[in-house]
Amino acid sequence: MTKTFSLRPIGFVRASRAEAVDDNWDTESCVIKLDETVCPASALQGLDAFSHAEVIFLFDRVDEAKITYETRRPRGNPAWPEIGIFAQRGKGRPNRLGATVARINRVDGAKLELSGLDAIDGTPVLDIKPVMSGFLPRGAFREPDWAKELMKDYW
Amino acid sequence: MTKTFSLRPIGFVRASRAEAVDDNWDTESCVIKLDETVCPASALQGLDAFSHAEVIFLFDRVDEAKITYETRRPRGNPAWPEIGIFAQRGKGRPNRLGATVARINRVDGAKLELSGLDAIDGTPVLDIKPVMSGFLPRGAFREPDWAKELMKDYW
Repeated sequence: MTKTFSLRPIGFVRASRAEAVDDNWDTESCVIKLDETVCPASALQGLDAFSHAEVIFLFDRVDEAKITYETRRPRGNPAWPEIGIFAQRGKGRPNRLGATVARINRVDGAKLELSGLDAIDGTPVLDIKPVMSGFLPRGAFREPDWAKELMKDYW
Repeated sequence: MTKTFSLRPIGFVRASRAEAVDDNWDTESCVIKLDETVCPASALQGLDAFSHAEVIFLFDRVDEAKITYETRRPRGNPAWPEIGIFAQRGKGRPNRLGATVARINRVDGAKLELSGLDAIDGTPVLDIKPVMSGFLPRGAFREPDWAKELMKDYW
């Protein structure tokens, strides 16, 4: 087997949603509180010059025995195609990583206040990156219809 | 200390660039080869219905002793502000995670051919996600001038 890498959360999500439910995330509020035994509050300094941050987090409440390696239909919907886990964004994925672009409301010391982060209370955060226009998708953009349908009520 | 999480690469980058150099990434070609002892080739099935994939990878060649926790100027440029590591995307960051949106050229069995992935040969890949329009930044977008200047010759 290949070697593994050990990652330590740099903070945790404090959110109004305590359990994983698929849709309507925009009704929730969310703060990331840095773990100051790992990173000083100054690690967030200057992030408020950006409108959006990308948060990389761990779906730690997913049972590792339930990770999908074989193909499946997104959300088990029979109308959608049977595809691999790397062609969908579901949480039961190898390494259980989430990556979401959220709106920055405020940086307050070791706290980052966000809107539109689809992570539940207590979620371990592994990284925070500013969203730069130079890192957005370049060239023609294309996605299948099921991806648009799935996102219809997500936020 | 908080607990750590153990992550196993799901594949590795095979790229034409062998050493970390900051700019001109679009001159490079890149393939991710899944580790089939971890994930079957079918984990990529259906990804070619999308134009772009987000790749989460590990800057494993960064010496852990060189990770930045305190503020610094991006690329050490004196013209740019002194800010926290989570307000920049440099590789010497806690947990050493990279996250880049690349263009999908082809899915070929356990191989994913990409353009515009800023990762060097041998880089461990932790996750691959399809880019859905519903996960792009929502609402007004803002970034500081230095971020635009830094990206000028990046691709």
